Amino acid sequence: MAKAPVLTPQADDFPRWYQDLINKAELADNGPVRGTMVIRPYGYGLWERMQADMDRRIKQAGAQNAYFPVLIPQSYLTREAEHVEGFAPELAVVTHGGGKELEEPVVIRPTSETIINEYFSKWVQSYRDLPLLINQWANVVRWELRPRLFLRTSEFLWQEGHTAHATHEDARDYAAHIHRNVYGDFMENVLAMDVVPGRKTVKERFAGAINTLTLEGMMGDGKALQMATSHELGQNFARAFNTQYLSKDGRQELVWQTSWGSTTRMVGALVMMHGDDNGLRVPPRLAPVQVVVLAIKGDDAVVAKVREIGDRLAAAGIRVQVDDRTDTPFGRRAVDWELKGVPVRVEVGPRDLENGTAMVARRIPGGKEPVVIEALEALLPKALEDDQALLLRQSRERRESRTSDVTTVAEAAEAAVAGGWARIPWSVLGPEGEAELAEQAVSVRCLVGEDGSVPESDDAPGTLAIVSRAY
Amino acid sequence: MAKAPVLTPQADDFPRWYQDLINKAELADNGPVRGTMVIRPYGYGLWERMQADMDRRIKQAGAQNAYFPVLIPQSYLTREAEHVEGFAPELAVVTHGGGKELEEPVVIRPTSETIINEYFSKWVQSYRDLPLLINQWANVVRWELRPRLFLRTSEFLWQEGHTAHATHEDARDYAAHIHRNVYGDFMENVLAMDVVPGRKTVKERFAGAINTLTLEGMMGDGKALQMATSHELGQNFARAFNTQYLSKDGRQELVWQTSWGSTTRMVGALVMMHGDDNGLRVPPRLAPVQVVVLAIKGDDAVVAKVREIGDRLAAAGIRVQVDDRTDTPFGRRAVDWELKGVPVRVEVGPRDLENGTAMVARRIPGGKEPVVIEALEALLPKALEDDQALLLRQSRERRESRTSDVTTVAEAAEAAVAGGWARIPWSVLGPEGEAELAEQAVSVRCLVGEDGSVPESDDAPGTLAIVSRAY
Repeated sequence: MAKAPVLTPQADDFPRWYQDLINKAELADNGPVRGTMVIRPYGYGLWERMQADMDRRIKQAGAQNAYFPVLIPQSYLTREAEHVEGFAPELAVVTHGGGKELEEPVVIRPTSETIINEYFSKWVQSYRDLPLLINQWANVVRWELRPRLFLRTSEFLWQEGHTAHATHEDARDYAAHIHRNVYGDFMENVLAMDVVPGRKTVKERFAGAINTLTLEGMMGDGKALQMATSHELGQNFARAFNTQYLSKDGRQELVWQTSWGSTTRMVGALVMMHGDDNGLRVPPRLAPVQVVVLAIKGDDAVVAKVREIGDRLAAAGIRVQVDDRTDTPFGRRAVDWELKGVPVRVEVGPRDLENGTAMVARRIPGGKEPVVIEALEALLPKALEDDQALLLRQSRERRESRTSDVTTVAEAAEAAVAGGWARIPWSVLGPEGEAELAEQAVSVRCLVGEDGSVPESDDAPGTLAIVSRAY
Repeated sequence: MAKAPVLTPQADDFPRWYQDLINKAELADNGPVRGTMVIRPYGYGLWERMQADMDRRIKQAGAQNAYFPVLIPQSYLTREAEHVEGFAPELAVVTHGGGKELEEPVVIRPTSETIINEYFSKWVQSYRDLPLLINQWANVVRWELRPRLFLRTSEFLWQEGHTAHATHEDARDYAAHIHRNVYGDFMENVLAMDVVPGRKTVKERFAGAINTLTLEGMMGDGKALQMATSHELGQNFARAFNTQYLSKDGRQELVWQTSWGSTTRMVGALVMMHGDDNGLRVPPRLAPVQVVVLAIKGDDAVVAKVREIGDRLAAAGIRVQVDDRTDTPFGRRAVDWELKGVPVRVEVGPRDLENGTAMVARRIPGGKEPVVIEALEALLPKALEDDQALLLRQSRERRESRTSDVTTVAEAAEAAVAGGWARIPWSVLGPEGEAELAEQAVSVRCLVGEDGSVPESDDAPGTLAIVSRAY
């Protein structure tokens, strides 16, 4: 008799598989207030590793971390017309503080453009103060009616970068640099995710931006997920907050700005991009634990051996965890590590000791084979590299095989509804076709050049629209 | 004619000196909502370095990071009677979300004992799940009527640890371990701060705790600042949230708990502990920038030399920054680095180049002397070590010289009002004396043993009370 599956199979019900996995791999729980989320230690460990790598890249891009208040006067939001229109429906409003009703209600930040511009307008005086490159790691609240853990939550964690530049060109180049070298490179080389860089249509732009750059990933069910965005804000917020500088030739000029963000949604993306019916598969470069060494039985020689192997692998630079909790049945522990997606399990029992071997289970390609214990340090680093490359290749192959080139709006809708992406000339689709697709819950994920480049404008010749359903 | 001082001198007006320093060293600004704070990049850089070191220590103590929602149903707070009484006056209340009035108001977390216990009660089933050791880095909001940047702000950043244990002893030992080995050791060995470990009186305990351990530091004006606290919660929250486990002998038992926190207030403590009339003095082990290499003039040879020195010092493991912004006058830059408290300035001008020397200014002991450029790598690491030790010694000497041993309540009050600490037998002072002192805005900072140990109880023989005014 076949064992009952640990998770709902993806093919049966992808959203339910996702919920099962988040729950059983102990990534997160629903919070008590609608749409909020408790990020459990294993899920938070993934986010922490993302943070560390991204933070290094952000600093390399010259930005410095700072922190702005979570509470923003409601009046700030209204100063930029498109911005308030975009965010007003999602605001959480604080009306009482310290036991009294507040004179002016304050909102919990949904994003920080407004409050940051209030300070930029004080800090920026002269061209010498530019570019001003700031990042913050913070929580934000956007009231969410259809919440889904990690993907859409009323509170999420993120980094938000905010910069001010002397010229349009400098701002444009910086937004592109973050898009490509911070976000794109991180997703490809650390998260092992195939992502498509492109620009958003006017309809899909950030509220208050003149251009939004995005990275779109294809999930296991063929839908798209917006992975991170980098915006050119032009002078919209500078105008609203009077953020000016004295130029070299002595004139007061408005600054040009960017903002860019990436969120805990990336943890959800990791699940939906790399997960399978047995659980998560974590790319080795990200994995908090790359190799787990399990004692099958609790006898002294086995426990001593798994600890010794653990020490040797750690000395070889591998992030390793020893699991000698032998009061929990081995099978349950093995399933748990599989659910959590640890790339390699090294399993050692009394019989293995006699042979001088360990059973090595590879989570990413699958499969299990005995390996001479002495050879582990030499073999595993290479195995982890191969696994990293395999995940990226699999995600790329999926995206390629499930993307169709089409020439009519009807074909585009059909491909998207069937669970894939369609590529269609933007000159054919246009804003009207985009509106038509919206009726079937299909959206333009991004505009790309024929050669995969990011178009300089929506009407650049040869621009293609990638359309699909999305999370 | 003497130059006007950059800061209000400490001796003239210590609180104003503090405000001046926070402002001119660009550590923080007031936020737009009363009591909130914008932490500027230099201030945040100090906090980031504190975080990194503390996070490592917390993980070494076995705790894992996680994240719980910022929004807590108001009803949670009321479940533990003392807790709600302590926090109700400071709450920020969200009444509207997503454009609608909420059915139940939610509060922005002032601390997370309640929401965390809601989840601990789900996660903890058996003795195998214990101890459960969780930490989170987060923002909290406590409405503040008399705000002061870093010291008392309506929103602050902190880490809060929350743990559940099978026995009273295990919880007690863990709270003490965090107190001593995470907080105490960090403050002494990284922040170079003399701190006194002790226990709080019943009056000063955390709302809901059965015991609060504290570290108290003496600031430059002789007042005390509570630096971090570690609480034994007993079974108070376990009872309120029904956090139970199945023991080895098959009985349902309530867990025993701890919580412990340290905040951005430590940045304020750094200023008030080590600052002088010229600005901040940052302990080298903490300093984001340990050595700044300044080009006095903008000629090519000088700029090339400061960059070369910068590279060599970085290669020697020093955190170094090169300042070749020679379009800003040298004097202004030197004052700015002095304000920011960078331990060592290496200043290079055209004349120095001829001599093969650089002027080395030491911020912590003070003084300036020429040093052969080739010798910098060898000399500076030792200088930084000496500076670290000197700061700790100075803070200890201040505390010792400004603490008096007294035997009456009147003498204790007098010493505290004069700007120092008094040590008085707790058997003499007692809760009545404590109430008397409170009338003169003097409080018992902590109880300590005669030998400096932390007493096991308030009435342990020989227990002394340390009393002073406090921030």
